[in-house]
Amino acid sequence: MPGTRPPKKHKGLVIINTGDGKGKSTAAFGMLMRAWGRDMKVVAVQFIKGETSKFGEHMALAKMGVEVIPAGRGFTWTSHDLDVDAGKARHGWKIASDMILSGKYDVMMLDEITYPIRYGWLEASDVIETLSRRPEMMHVVMTGRNAPEELIEYADLVTEMRLVKHPYAEQGVTAQKGVEL
Amino acid sequence: MPGTRPPKKHKGLVIINTGDGKGKSTAAFGMLMRAWGRDMKVVAVQFIKGETSKFGEHMALAKMGVEVIPAGRGFTWTSHDLDVDAGKARHGWKIASDMILSGKYDVMMLDEITYPIRYGWLEASDVIETLSRRPEMMHVVMTGRNAPEELIEYADLVTEMRLVKHPYAEQGVTAQKGVEL
Repeated sequence: MPGTRPPKKHKGLVIINTGDGKGKSTAAFGMLMRAWGRDMKVVAVQFIKGETSKFGEHMALAKMGVEVIPAGRGFTWTSHDLDVDAGKARHGWKIASDMILSGKYDVMMLDEITYPIRYGWLEASDVIETLSRRPEMMHVVMTGRNAPEELIEYADLVTEMRLVKHPYAEQGVTAQKGVEL
Repeated sequence: MPGTRPPKKHKGLVIINTGDGKGKSTAAFGMLMRAWGRDMKVVAVQFIKGETSKFGEHMALAKMGVEVIPAGRGFTWTSHDLDVDAGKARHGWKIASDMILSGKYDVMMLDEITYPIRYGWLEASDVIETLSRRPEMMHVVMTGRNAPEELIEYADLVTEMRLVKHPYAEQGVTAQKGVEL
């Protein structure tokens, strides 16, 4: 019937935070924090990892007892061998994929997973295929710029973080510990 | 000189997460989590508070030992008296303002502060006046839709969260515990 609300239902959501602005990973970490507050089982898988970036959230997740799995390039950007990087990304996805299907997690973050897909190291269709077989109530939040259309099509909730104003270019302010790192 | 990068400097940032999309408060909570991970002193002040919403982050902040200060309407929406609401908002801002100037906090979240400003209960100029006197290294992150232009003008970093796709309208899915509540 027109105008009738569909019945409310509960299900695990596939969430994407994309766009060029700040806050994509930060909001996903906030989501993990919220679920952790409810004693849900949460885990973060990171596909790109600089050596110093995101150190604040690693310290926080360690304090919270939340697992962080390095996938893809792992903990450094030292490799300049694309075949090695592609291999690491595929290996990282295999680990993440097994974890998704294990039934052990309520909420999983796939941080910066859009990059290995954009680089051609992972297929969006493989990611979707695994997500479609995940436990019914499991939430998965993916982050990164330029989320592939296929993934957006599949997701339940997609937010674009758009930069309105940024201090670095204008004021020469460097990234600040605690709020961005 | 054109093309010369300004010297890097450190300073406390005024950050705004605005827009109609999800993730404004969630990203601010992620920021608090990151700073908490670095053992910085963080606090959340909430200007609008439904009775059941955001319960997940309250549980998380309690587990983390982070203070949450109810301001404005406080913990319920039960009041329908606008004068009472306005008074609460002003009282809430007085508390927040004293905390900002106390020098005790490294990072403060002013959650949904845009609403009492939009309702005319707080003046953006008063908020800016207090922020301008805060400790130099203190970060303040403000959230809410329709951030006033004056506040955006004053802020260092502004992100708009834009809704690309949302499950409720399309699929009749209700808000999910752990990821949104």
